[in-house]
Amino acid sequence: MKNVICCRCVKCGREYPAAPDITTCECGGILDVIYDYEYIATKLTKETLRARTDRTMWRYRELLPIEESTVPSGLCVGMSPMYEADNIAAELGIAKLYIKDDGINPTASLKDRASAMAVTKAIEAGYDTIACSSTGNAASSLAGNAAKAGLKTYIFVPSRAPKGKIAQLMMFGANLTAVDGSYEETFELSKAAIDKFGWYNRNAAINPYLGEGKKTVAHEICEQLGYKAPDYVAVSVGDGCTVAGVYKGLYDMYMIGLIDRIPHIISVQAEGCCPINTAVINNEPWQPQEENTFADSIAVGVPRNPDKAINAIRDSGGICVNVSDDEIRSARRYLASKAGVFGEPAGVTATAGLIKLSREGRLPHEAVVVSIVTGNGLKDIDSAIQSVGEPVHCKNDLAQFEKLFF
Amino acid sequence: MKNVICCRCVKCGREYPAAPDITTCECGGILDVIYDYEYIATKLTKETLRARTDRTMWRYRELLPIEESTVPSGLCVGMSPMYEADNIAAELGIAKLYIKDDGINPTASLKDRASAMAVTKAIEAGYDTIACSSTGNAASSLAGNAAKAGLKTYIFVPSRAPKGKIAQLMMFGANLTAVDGSYEETFELSKAAIDKFGWYNRNAAINPYLGEGKKTVAHEICEQLGYKAPDYVAVSVGDGCTVAGVYKGLYDMYMIGLIDRIPHIISVQAEGCCPINTAVINNEPWQPQEENTFADSIAVGVPRNPDKAINAIRDSGGICVNVSDDEIRSARRYLASKAGVFGEPAGVTATAGLIKLSREGRLPHEAVVVSIVTGNGLKDIDSAIQSVGEPVHCKNDLAQFEKLFF
Repeated sequence: MKNVICCRCVKCGREYPAAPDITTCECGGILDVIYDYEYIATKLTKETLRARTDRTMWRYRELLPIEESTVPSGLCVGMSPMYEADNIAAELGIAKLYIKDDGINPTASLKDRASAMAVTKAIEAGYDTIACSSTGNAASSLAGNAAKAGLKTYIFVPSRAPKGKIAQLMMFGANLTAVDGSYEETFELSKAAIDKFGWYNRNAAINPYLGEGKKTVAHEICEQLGYKAPDYVAVSVGDGCTVAGVYKGLYDMYMIGLIDRIPHIISVQAEGCCPINTAVINNEPWQPQEENTFADSIAVGVPRNPDKAINAIRDSGGICVNVSDDEIRSARRYLASKAGVFGEPAGVTATAGLIKLSREGRLPHEAVVVSIVTGNGLKDIDSAIQSVGEPVHCKNDLAQFEKLFF
Repeated sequence: MKNVICCRCVKCGREYPAAPDITTCECGGILDVIYDYEYIATKLTKETLRARTDRTMWRYRELLPIEESTVPSGLCVGMSPMYEADNIAAELGIAKLYIKDDGINPTASLKDRASAMAVTKAIEAGYDTIACSSTGNAASSLAGNAAKAGLKTYIFVPSRAPKGKIAQLMMFGANLTAVDGSYEETFELSKAAIDKFGWYNRNAAINPYLGEGKKTVAHEICEQLGYKAPDYVAVSVGDGCTVAGVYKGLYDMYMIGLIDRIPHIISVQAEGCCPINTAVINNEPWQPQEENTFADSIAVGVPRNPDKAINAIRDSGGICVNVSDDEIRSARRYLASKAGVFGEPAGVTATAGLIKLSREGRLPHEAVVVSIVTGNGLKDIDSAIQSVGEPVHCKNDLAQFEKLFF
């Protein structure tokens, strides 16, 4: 890879060659992929992007850690739509709001970006099997992308995982193990099996390439805005991998000169589970927290990528804001009815944070803001049913209908 | 509209000016939009398409019935991925199979193409409110696209409609009426209210423009195949609007010279509800049927667009095939695990039909086939849960895991 220099530990700084199946540093720290931006800047320009017909995340391949000869595997991921929401911007008192709808990806979440990268690296490294433990979007996106790529998958979920998510995984043909135990035990069994059988490891924050897939959402934001950096990018934050990826993508675009400054990250967590924001706000090491939120995709009390996430928020001069479950529910309806974008609870948490910041007067009126929706509302229809209540009932009687509505 | 000549009744041939809110012919027949293909052929060429950056269904706007000055409204619909499925083609004994995944549209079904057209025409005609009766994808796509376009919606569903679908509609801010009665009564109340209040009518097969939106899926298939027409295009068929739209799109591309022949339509219905296929196979007028299939989106015993659908199948020299619910269930798992595309039951019915035809030796070995997946599997997770059974359970114990899997 001419574009990649090495993998570097974010904790101790130790460097490693970027092998396709590298995991963490010997010190336990997470690795960051280090690029040769000078070289990349000569290859990836506005002109090359304008001429490029690839409409997936791989259109930014000079910024991605794959060999020049690698043919990307997996589903058609990325280039999700970004909507101008002038009506919402006006109500929030900001200049511009863009909603980046990543819920339209093939398995309906931003995690497809990481999983498409994972299956591509697994094949590049010569593996025929890939594994992870997850209850949620990571698992379904891995199962879908691996099915397309022709890889076998072993996926480990706690046996309490919702039946709908289990059904989706089994549909994709994953070898699914429901572990009778906690999530921690599920993770342990997956690790033991991966070590024993030598499968490719797609566990978040162990594999340094996953975030490199996720960062393409930020590349797209820059290109879709005509390379005019927004002032803020709002992201919902759970284990920290997505926010770290978003920052990395913005940093990439800045380093190769396609944007002239790095936007401030708005890191939004649930009040009931906000270890990363608490650490940043209090400027202290992060501490484990309870997981008291219905937004399951960001209910992570022991984040697996706190270092990169905290660095991303700080280095961008970011803002942290925590929102209640009621604020998330309310933002979900607001976003669907005002912008036509129906997100899962964690998917609309960024927007809930924006609404709160604007009410508190913490966003300047001239602000241009992008809010990322990370997952489709169809992923969690049960909570939608609970939140909307009963519809109006009526007989086949126009007079009754008129009375009810007018 | 320089590209549109008129609207013509498919039953009696009477012609009408293409007003933006025209409905059916005085004889009750459905109208077809008639184009000036000679004019369009001078405007829409391979070269103009290659240079066009619009990656939505509106990239074919010369073939769409909107004014030159109209700015399309609604969500970013269309340009869904089409996957080569060489592994499935090999198993079916055909030369090439392409899976067109229309479940990745913004509200997760092909119906978004019709609804984006409907809201665009409603705004063009000066309406601020749009209405329909539906229990399914038409309603959710209308609610989502109207929310984005800033139109009010009135949607009528039978009160027995699944709670998940009702929740999605209410999330999008639709004025929802649950009618205590049959679907027929629901339709009647919607018609009475639309007549009384003068709303824009998005009821299928009444509004001639809806199919014109749907046909863009066929335009995309042609472009994505480099204008080399496939031999067959397989479509699941319910009320007949989608298959009619697919044929119209292929016909368009043939008439402006972008493909050199019209592919054969493979019309796939559920065995428990197949009035259109029965009419074509027996060469007799269609008769109402019971609605005995779990594939709810195509459970239409009284199709609303039989004439256009039957013409489409016949004029293309098409094939009709009916499949059982078990064959649909089996195709659903097969497609998800072999291609990474998870469809709703009606969404994979076309593929179930293909599998059946190939087993019966009714497809030539050199056949190039496209199968359209019309809706996302997340739309009906309950039936997925029923079909996959229980996963393997295991303690956090590597030895037990090994015994279970190896």
